[in-house]
Amino acid sequence: MNLIISGTNRNRSNSLKVARFYQKQLEKKGAEFDILSLEDLPANIAHTDLYGNRSEDFALIQEKISAAKLFVFIIPEYNGSYPGILKLFIDACAYPTSFHHKKAALVGVSSGKYGNIRGVDHFTGVCNYMRMHILPLKIHIPLIQNELDDAEDFHDPLSLKFIEEQIEEIIRF
Amino acid sequence: MNLIISGTNRNRSNSLKVARFYQKQLEKKGAEFDILSLEDLPANIAHTDLYGNRSEDFALIQEKISAAKLFVFIIPEYNGSYPGILKLFIDACAYPTSFHHKKAALVGVSSGKYGNIRGVDHFTGVCNYMRMHILPLKIHIPLIQNELDDAEDFHDPLSLKFIEEQIEEIIRF
Amino acid sequence: MNLIISGTNRNRSNSLKVARFYQKQLEKKGAEFDILSLEDLPANIAHTDLYGNRSEDFALIQEKISAAKLFVFIIPEYNGSYPGILKLFIDACAYPTSFHHKKAALVGVSSGKYGNIRGVDHFTGVCNYMRMHILPLKIHIPLIQNELDDAEDFHDPLSLKFIEEQIEEIIRF
Amino acid sequence: MNLIISGTNRNRSNSLKVARFYQKQLEKKGAEFDILSLEDLPANIAHTDLYGNRSEDFALIQEKISAAKLFVFIIPEYNGSYPGILKLFIDACAYPTSFHHKKAALVGVSSGKYGNIRGVDHFTGVCNYMRMHILPLKIHIPLIQNELDDAEDFHDPLSLKFIEEQIEEIIRF
Repeated sequence: MNLIISGTNRNRSNSLKVARFYQKQLEKKGAEFDILSLEDLPANIAHTDLYGNRSEDFALIQEKISAAKLFVFIIPEYNGSYPGILKLFIDACAYPTSFHHKKAALVGVSSGKYGNIRGVDHFTGVCNYMRMHILPLKIHIPLIQNELDDAEDFHDPLSLKFIEEQIEEIIRF
Repeated sequence: MNLIISGTNRNRSNSLKVARFYQKQLEKKGAEFDILSLEDLPANIAHTDLYGNRSEDFALIQEKISAAKLFVFIIPEYNGSYPGILKLFIDACAYPTSFHHKKAALVGVSSGKYGNIRGVDHFTGVCNYMRMHILPLKIHIPLIQNELDDAEDFHDPLSLKFIEEQIEEIIRF
Repeated sequence: MNLIISGTNRNRSNSLKVARFYQKQLEKKGAEFDILSLEDLPANIAHTDLYGNRSEDFALIQEKISAAKLFVFIIPEYNGSYPGILKLFIDACAYPTSFHHKKAALVGVSSGKYGNIRGVDHFTGVCNYMRMHILPLKIHIPLIQNELDDAEDFHDPLSLKFIEEQIEEIIRF
Repeated sequence: MNLIISGTNRNRSNSLKVARFYQKQLEKKGAEFDILSLEDLPANIAHTDLYGNRSEDFALIQEKISAAKLFVFIIPEYNGSYPGILKLFIDACAYPTSFHHKKAALVGVSSGKYGNIRGVDHFTGVCNYMRMHILPLKIHIPLIQNELDDAEDFHDPLSLKFIEEQIEEIIRF
């Protein structure tokens, strides 16, 4: 099953809401994706799953990663780039089987004005290094707190238009 | 006390050896630095010290960070950029008191050929975002496993020359 | 004399208007800057002033560059980054006397939503490579066409606040 | 016809030699590419072909760009990134017909130690912005002056191995 990765372990994050929105929209077009939220990482991943170690909890996550061929990463902006926990998760994944020659689409999310341009660019560099194909159309959602309504849908027509276009490209990727 | 940060929690890392080398060289010039190794982070930092939480263990580390005015970051290359644990550590530090209007010098380290150019560039973006002044002269040490001798000194004259130049600039920064 | 560089050779550019605004604001604080507009580059600079060649026209520009110690670069967004003409200008300048160990502040400008985050980041990489100190506080002005009024002043209070803060830091840099 | 673009207007550049080597290797695998050397740009391109202007000379180049679906960019390192002339060329090309939804492979070249990692990363950002698919496997050739022999062939077995791998991926891209 392909995966949407919600790129933070913060509880009740906007990123997870965006992940659910993408899942729903992709499903409408007939594309099934599971969601992997980084909330579900082992609490002590920094010690149990780096440098050749592997916990039972992460082993189950690794199976999902290894099985997926196409990823959507939802990437919030922390200190001007992607969250440390997202890169730590990448560093914990088996290399090269996790991402080599696979495909990913990237979605930047921020509470500020710029939609995590820098974090998405940095993450592109990491993904390309791991030999992952990146969809050129990257979506940047600034002021995320204003974007999602109570039903966790986007209501801004311009945001919806860009997301729709990216979703079409994800399906044909 | 100013700080040299060894940017990985891997045991017996080359980054920590490089940190010790910098500490020794800086001391020869009369500049005292403590070393903070990311090995000493709480094992479950991803749950205890993000999003407004603070553990007792990290509180002691935070005190050192808050007191320092000048940092040297030793940054190994993991998956083509800086380690996730390094950014997670940054995300855990108090904002903006930790790094705002302070200064840092950056040292890239890799076992491969390129000395972590990309990771040091990405980290520059994060540091500048946090309003930290970055020393323009950044050192990139490729093939680190060949660089350090048994006494944990650098023996390559060209590497030594660049490190020496950076250390002079750190002292005057 | 220190220099504000308007980073495009487009006629009647918004970047030049921003350059004039910065000049006026800096002068109010007692800091004198000349403006160098890339409109004034030789038409055939790509052939006359690269790879060791030097035209008489550029020689006069080079004198100004060599004399300045502090620069403000106004950087519009072209194709998602800085203009080619700006990097070509840098490539034409004498190395290392032009920028080595000097200082610069960066201002991104775009007609789109993101204020040239990427272009300013890329230019930071180039400047640091040339050993230039970059002011961490970088200003990003999106939707520039809406920002400047007929008197070529900024009227948005939030933009003015950030510009004011950067100008204070430029003066103390 | 698909195109290999030699990313500098410097005469007798190593980039053009690398372009010819790639052309030869691709031809051996049955893939025909023309070479476009930036030496052939109009001398005053900065005035004749930006901001909606178009010279007769560039119109012929534009036709080739518009016809190509797949590009290989050979990118030398100037001042720590790609050459200004390469970005100026991109800025001069018609948008979006030139590169939108097309594909490119990137090759960094430097006389120094790092093979233009930074320039290739920056150029990836520009290409992705223009919605161009970038082959994740990017080749970085440091110390280019030592790499090419008199017959303009690469002789280092490791360089040859990586180039070979990239060429296989270009053909299947």
